[in-house]
Amino acid sequence: MGEDYRELLKQVLNEERYLHSLGVKKASGELACLYGADKARAEKAGLLHDYGKQFSEEELLVKSRELGLRLDIVEENNPELLHASVGALLVKTELGIEDEDIIEAISCHTTGKAGMGRLACLVFLADFIEENRSFPGVEEIRELALKDLDKAILRALDQTINYVVKRGRLLHPDSINLRNEIIVKMANRNRGVSS
Amino acid sequence: MGEDYRELLKQVLNEERYLHSLGVKKASGELACLYGADKARAEKAGLLHDYGKQFSEEELLVKSRELGLRLDIVEENNPELLHASVGALLVKTELGIEDEDIIEAISCHTTGKAGMGRLACLVFLADFIEENRSFPGVEEIRELALKDLDKAILRALDQTINYVVKRGRLLHPDSINLRNEIIVKMANRNRGVSS
Repeated sequence: MGEDYRELLKQVLNEERYLHSLGVKKASGELACLYGADKARAEKAGLLHDYGKQFSEEELLVKSRELGLRLDIVEENNPELLHASVGALLVKTELGIEDEDIIEAISCHTTGKAGMGRLACLVFLADFIEENRSFPGVEEIRELALKDLDKAILRALDQTINYVVKRGRLLHPDSINLRNEIIVKMANRNRGVSS
Repeated sequence: MGEDYRELLKQVLNEERYLHSLGVKKASGELACLYGADKARAEKAGLLHDYGKQFSEEELLVKSRELGLRLDIVEENNPELLHASVGALLVKTELGIEDEDIIEAISCHTTGKAGMGRLACLVFLADFIEENRSFPGVEEIRELALKDLDKAILRALDQTINYVVKRGRLLHPDSINLRNEIIVKMANRNRGVSS
């Protein structure tokens, strides 16, 4: 990795978020090694995944308008979700990052998305299991992450869905579509059909 | 209601499904009275909602192809869901029903759909709470149905989502979008914003 963005992130993110970003960088790199992806790119995406978290909800709404983003019903009612797509666009324009897999990983890291690539899968999961996370069930997902990427992401999605439903909050269709995609892929794999 | 389809349904559905259809007819009519909708149309939609259940999964796949339906990933992997859209098209062509609200109610009764009309909401809920249903939590949904249509449908959707996630099955995006729509509508209502 030619450039290190840690100093920049330390300035724009609060301490907790900065430490979390370091944790996601580390976990993304470890997952990349485990699953045969490029460690440096995974670390870069992991480190920068919350670049959009430097903004308040109001700022994210303004940025989204400036950037021409079309908000869906979930984003309209949960503007904090926009840190992902806003962050993805800004690492491109502000930091000059042109690696589309890294941009996708940042853009999809909160909700996930059907069809997202390997790097995005690693960062999505790393965001869940990095060493600073301590929610109930995280150990189980960490163990699954060592054995089966799809199963680990599925468990993370299920956990999110249960959490969101229990609290009466909105579910993002992108998460649902990713979950469906993984279940079908796993079923095909079990039947010996290539996906 | 000019025509009674009970004899026809008795012939094409098994006994349990036929009794369920009578239950949904009754519950749809009751909900229509409660919520100021047309009782006869609600009863007709409720009675006919499972018209597509006369077919096996294989037959539903054949019918879908014949009718030019485009299957989504959830339907491809759960062909039994097709009884709703196939049934909706067949009551039109085979029974000559042209009431688009009734056709919509039949089409949306299993997954629900964002933007579906009042009649479809009544039949969706009636299908959950009709007198032959006896799953855990049904009484609570029945009580909610007497007081607040949106809350009752939301509870039914949450219950379905929990059930489906627990069993590792696919979630239909239409149910998720309906749930999101209801939550936003209820939040706007609580804030005094008309939807």
